[in-house]
Amino acid sequence: MPESVFADMAHLTAPLRRFGASLLARYFVLAVGLAAMTAFTVPEWRSAAGAWLSACLWCCLAYFAAETLIRGSAALRAGAGASHFFSLAGVIDILGVVPVPIALICGVAPPTAWLLAALWVLKLAQNSPGFAQLGRVFRLEARALASVLVLFLIVLFLASAAMHLIERAGQPNAFGTLPAAMWWAVVTLTTTGYGDEVPLTQAGHLLGAFVMICGIATFGLWTGILATGFAAESRRRNFLQTWDLVSKVPFFQTLDPSAITEITHRLRRVEVPQRTPVIRRGRVGDCMYFIAAGEVQVELNPASVRLGSGTFFGELALLGDSIRTANVSTTQQSTLLVLDLADFRTLMAHHPDLARAIEAEGKRRMSDNQRRRELHLQGGTSPS
Amino acid sequence: MPESVFADMAHLTAPLRRFGASLLARYFVLAVGLAAMTAFTVPEWRSAAGAWLSACLWCCLAYFAAETLIRGSAALRAGAGASHFFSLAGVIDILGVVPVPIALICGVAPPTAWLLAALWVLKLAQNSPGFAQLGRVFRLEARALASVLVLFLIVLFLASAAMHLIERAGQPNAFGTLPAAMWWAVVTLTTTGYGDEVPLTQAGHLLGAFVMICGIATFGLWTGILATGFAAESRRRNFLQTWDLVSKVPFFQTLDPSAITEITHRLRRVEVPQRTPVIRRGRVGDCMYFIAAGEVQVELNPASVRLGSGTFFGELALLGDSIRTANVSTTQQSTLLVLDLADFRTLMAHHPDLARAIEAEGKRRMSDNQRRRELHLQGGTSPS
Amino acid sequence: MPESVFADMAHLTAPLRRFGASLLARYFVLAVGLAAMTAFTVPEWRSAAGAWLSACLWCCLAYFAAETLIRGSAALRAGAGASHFFSLAGVIDILGVVPVPIALICGVAPPTAWLLAALWVLKLAQNSPGFAQLGRVFRLEARALASVLVLFLIVLFLASAAMHLIERAGQPNAFGTLPAAMWWAVVTLTTTGYGDEVPLTQAGHLLGAFVMICGIATFGLWTGILATGFAAESRRRNFLQTWDLVSKVPFFQTLDPSAITEITHRLRRVEVPQRTPVIRRGRVGDCMYFIAAGEVQVELNPASVRLGSGTFFGELALLGDSIRTANVSTTQQSTLLVLDLADFRTLMAHHPDLARAIEAEGKRRMSDNQRRRELHLQGGTSPS
Amino acid sequence: MPESVFADMAHLTAPLRRFGASLLARYFVLAVGLAAMTAFTVPEWRSAAGAWLSACLWCCLAYFAAETLIRGSAALRAGAGASHFFSLAGVIDILGVVPVPIALICGVAPPTAWLLAALWVLKLAQNSPGFAQLGRVFRLEARALASVLVLFLIVLFLASAAMHLIERAGQPNAFGTLPAAMWWAVVTLTTTGYGDEVPLTQAGHLLGAFVMICGIATFGLWTGILATGFAAESRRRNFLQTWDLVSKVPFFQTLDPSAITEITHRLRRVEVPQRTPVIRRGRVGDCMYFIAAGEVQVELNPASVRLGSGTFFGELALLGDSIRTANVSTTQQSTLLVLDLADFRTLMAHHPDLARAIEAEGKRRMSDNQRRRELHLQGGTSPS
Repeated sequence: MPESVFADMAHLTAPLRRFGASLLARYFVLAVGLAAMTAFTVPEWRSAAGAWLSACLWCCLAYFAAETLIRGSAALRAGAGASHFFSLAGVIDILGVVPVPIALICGVAPPTAWLLAALWVLKLAQNSPGFAQLGRVFRLEARALASVLVLFLIVLFLASAAMHLIERAGQPNAFGTLPAAMWWAVVTLTTTGYGDEVPLTQAGHLLGAFVMICGIATFGLWTGILATGFAAESRRRNFLQTWDLVSKVPFFQTLDPSAITEITHRLRRVEVPQRTPVIRRGRVGDCMYFIAAGEVQVELNPASVRLGSGTFFGELALLGDSIRTANVSTTQQSTLLVLDLADFRTLMAHHPDLARAIEAEGKRRMSDNQRRRELHLQGGTSPS
Repeated sequence: MPESVFADMAHLTAPLRRFGASLLARYFVLAVGLAAMTAFTVPEWRSAAGAWLSACLWCCLAYFAAETLIRGSAALRAGAGASHFFSLAGVIDILGVVPVPIALICGVAPPTAWLLAALWVLKLAQNSPGFAQLGRVFRLEARALASVLVLFLIVLFLASAAMHLIERAGQPNAFGTLPAAMWWAVVTLTTTGYGDEVPLTQAGHLLGAFVMICGIATFGLWTGILATGFAAESRRRNFLQTWDLVSKVPFFQTLDPSAITEITHRLRRVEVPQRTPVIRRGRVGDCMYFIAAGEVQVELNPASVRLGSGTFFGELALLGDSIRTANVSTTQQSTLLVLDLADFRTLMAHHPDLARAIEAEGKRRMSDNQRRRELHLQGGTSPS
Repeated sequence: MPESVFADMAHLTAPLRRFGASLLARYFVLAVGLAAMTAFTVPEWRSAAGAWLSACLWCCLAYFAAETLIRGSAALRAGAGASHFFSLAGVIDILGVVPVPIALICGVAPPTAWLLAALWVLKLAQNSPGFAQLGRVFRLEARALASVLVLFLIVLFLASAAMHLIERAGQPNAFGTLPAAMWWAVVTLTTTGYGDEVPLTQAGHLLGAFVMICGIATFGLWTGILATGFAAESRRRNFLQTWDLVSKVPFFQTLDPSAITEITHRLRRVEVPQRTPVIRRGRVGDCMYFIAAGEVQVELNPASVRLGSGTFFGELALLGDSIRTANVSTTQQSTLLVLDLADFRTLMAHHPDLARAIEAEGKRRMSDNQRRRELHLQGGTSPS
Repeated sequence: MPESVFADMAHLTAPLRRFGASLLARYFVLAVGLAAMTAFTVPEWRSAAGAWLSACLWCCLAYFAAETLIRGSAALRAGAGASHFFSLAGVIDILGVVPVPIALICGVAPPTAWLLAALWVLKLAQNSPGFAQLGRVFRLEARALASVLVLFLIVLFLASAAMHLIERAGQPNAFGTLPAAMWWAVVTLTTTGYGDEVPLTQAGHLLGAFVMICGIATFGLWTGILATGFAAESRRRNFLQTWDLVSKVPFFQTLDPSAITEITHRLRRVEVPQRTPVIRRGRVGDCMYFIAAGEVQVELNPASVRLGSGTFFGELALLGDSIRTANVSTTQQSTLLVLDLADFRTLMAHHPDLARAIEAEGKRRMSDNQRRRELHLQGGTSPS
């Protein structure tokens, strides 16, 4: 397990720590609400604990209503009411509060009315930064995806009509009408294959085989378009996120713009919460870190050193042998830029001056550490 | 929701506006015709509204016949009759008109004859520009795809023969003949899995598991080939579409050919219909626009400014902070070239003179706006 | 339909023309043999036409035996007997001839013995150049694919054991033993989903959902590895095939090695049989051609011009407007190198001297054509 | 079959030879143990050979217990006990030994207790180097994959609720509760399609078709993300593995750092065990080899030449025609760096001095061979 795991895992759990209780509480209410809503549709559970489930659902609804009110009034105070209520987040907020009471007032039976609480699941999309990314991929590739969809429709229609002709005599229920045959064609083209409608004649089998192979081809094109689009979008997004941070690291200021562009493509941003280990002594190191914001503490032998925003650490393991020589952890919530070993080497080859600067700093630190340790040892304390 | 959505959405709906009523009418007739054809195969609906459905189908047929005649006579007048009638579009036109009447004349029952109207769905391919692209991918990758198909056939044949041997004693109906076993093999290799024929013995299960894994491997290769081919084709197509437009923007004329090639790879073309907002004030901007054709109107404070073909806008948000400072909308149908923020930064790094030119223009505009606003404020009107 | 279709389609059918009757006959015998073998397993067809099918099968066997003997003796004469008989092609030849007679001699019933003729399908792999490519991808990515397979095995074993525990009480037939549960797990992980064994309890549904999502993840990795490997292999193969041809075109000799490498990456090789149209007058051109071997005839107005190996054509449509000005067809079997419009533009930008040379030749030809046509018109004949 | 197969296959079997008996024994015990565990769940087999199976299982458990003890005590002696027992390998070791005895002691019936031996399959992950790679891909793409999972959850919830509403009247068993409808939605979204729950109404069919198409889109995104991530990770890993070896080849020392970076990206590392053929005379060569460690023996005509670490061979086939002129095999376990023909040509174009050095060495060797053969022929022996 390479040691860059620490920073990555810290990064993954960072949002929870940062937003703290409020976001955690929100996800908890969401999970409880969706579970209660699901349980409320099962007659046995409803008869066993209907009152509890109902109370639970009303509490969740109250929580979401309060949230909607707070956000809405904040938006109104900021003079952005209209744009808030017509934004995606605003609509999701309202969809989570209004439909259930309306349904209950209209006299819909509670088990059915509470089904509308399934709309709460949309709240997951409100906090997910990746959704904008997925949406962008679909929008940019819209024309290509539409072509695939047209291909899908053409095969669907022609295959249904042909299968209806072939199989309607033998299976009037399954293929007797075109809508029934189209259901078979969709189930087959998507390679779902329920098996509720299956051709039985030789000709039907031949056509079915052809439809399945078309389904795989269509699917392959669809996957190819999304894969290509997503890869481009990821690169673009990472570049934009990293660019602003790179400009804050003084070390990169001396580079020419084209080198900055190159290094921006190679850095990866991680958010590390406070008091989290980033590097563990004795582990094999495969990356170095630049501090874009925050502060870390390097636990050297006699005392520890603090490094602030704009400095870098972890370069020793990349220059000499790859074993980390000290523990490093954050003292506050920090934003680090990770430079991988492979990218480090490529960058060093293309920008020898950058290489020299890092090496010089590395050597200075190594001799510092050496000197400090010697002083310390002369002072008589042995390292644990 | 980033603001480039406006231009993109405008772009997506542009064909409808441009071709206007005629294309919309066509899609409407197509949808109605296919729906009526589908409904006509359902006995209940036919007995309930058979006359209406029939009338509807005849109307659609008449519309398509008229369309075919108009196009055909236009082609004949242009002296390109033969090449039109043997082109894909010509064949699709004729396939949509001729088969149904012939079938009815030959005495085929109407519900069966009208099934041939399923060929109308091919008309979707006539207006889809992406189809040529998909076709090109299949043609260029034909040899690789054929290899995968051969692999598929080999596994199919050998697995069917082996499964027939293993299972024919226990399930004479499902695996008693090789064609039946081949049906199982196709259903399994494509991972469709109807479940109408399933091996029951231990040996059959082992062979079945192997066939499924082969199916996934074959599928993966197929997807990989199409994904690779499609990505290359998309890049090529975008380059060609953008190239001609780039040469029309005077701003790029001063660049050396290799820079033009680079910028062409990074620009994305969008068609925006008239009177459509492109940039909204106060939104976060992530791209700038070059006008290849058409005109836009920038709503500055006292008065608005018009920018014509060959100019650019939206660069302020990329140079300074990223909030748009004015509304921009088209005054006529326009073709814009979008330069994304990430590509903008990379380009600026590689071509500092381009960067300087854009920056100078940006500063000039900012001071212009400033001056104008001051003059205006001295004149006593406050911005809303 | 872009006009490069002509060369491409000619290219796809070229192998048939080149190997001519012999290869066509081989595929015909193969198709007939496999069809007869398949039909021979169906009792009705066997009783109806058993003698004919049997005769057909024996003829195919005789054909393949003759082929095997001819190839084998040729290899023996060339002193390469051992390496031939242990090569893939040699083994496939023998597998197509020996097993059926041995089975018949051993007293196996004919319908069963002839099942071994399914091995004939392997002959498809003998002539398929893409197979070596697929094999190479699997070999180079063997370690990554093995990791995915290990992941698959781990999920398979743990999910089977857990599902066996959960469902064995309720469904002793479907999940009562671990092998039965493993059959369910394979069917589910590959997303085949026959539905012959389905969990019925809530816990079983939860585990089943988890297994399906794992299946998609595994599948995605598998596809990703194959897609990446195949893309790299395709690029490599095209480069090698094109390289040797590029060195035969004098036009490229003057370029420096790095430009040759670049152009080699961009050219695409097509084989065109004799007397095949490559360019049609009036079509939109999107590529130019270099003749690596063979000869083409340009049908200019009064007379036609022949261009031999080492020359190029079709550049006019890329330099000026994109309409082809003449028909071009091959006079003999030719190997052409296609340079796409997008690549042409990029190359021209990077190598201005190459651009100048092509442009000069293009202009020379245009003025030649002009002069010739004028002379011709003065002579009084009007073009049709 | 290209000749680089030799080195590749040798490479694939190398781990077995290197770790020798111990690793082979481990895999054998693992296979036997898992097979016995599987057989032990089948009542017939248990009643027929229960004692044997039980003995077999206890032996495997003893083997794994011994292995765990040996590793654990080695770790304790090295003072790394805690980090070993909390590492993945340590946990897997303990999971393979402890659970079964505990279950048996707690009075669980043996056939059920031995099911816990399914955890042994995790041992496959201990020796698989690719697992760290897969884990890294999942970690780096965690945010994108989470977005897809959220999309999946949203579609799942909304589709289940809608389908429950639509179908609960007609099929109270299959869609009567939300959990049941969710089971249908998972089975459909993953395109598994058991067919145990299938919508029967027209509205249900429409919704089902939409869910299937959503399933394919989600799947495509998931595949795209993993494919992109895996490709990047493979490149990175190959670069790191090759880098250290490149620095050991004196031939590359003279190159500038950017050339070394380029060549490192193009080389591929293979491990070849001792006395293994790498090149076979007469085969078509498509790569050359650099010896990073070890030694090879070139079987030239009269005598053979040994080449040690830091030298290269196989370059003649790339410079002149492509037929190998000598057999080459390893004399000891060696690490070779393979340079493919396509990459060789690209490198030669970019680094003419490298090309000249290799060519000079090639010519020297050719004339050496020539001279030696002449001397030998004058001495009267003819090559076989």
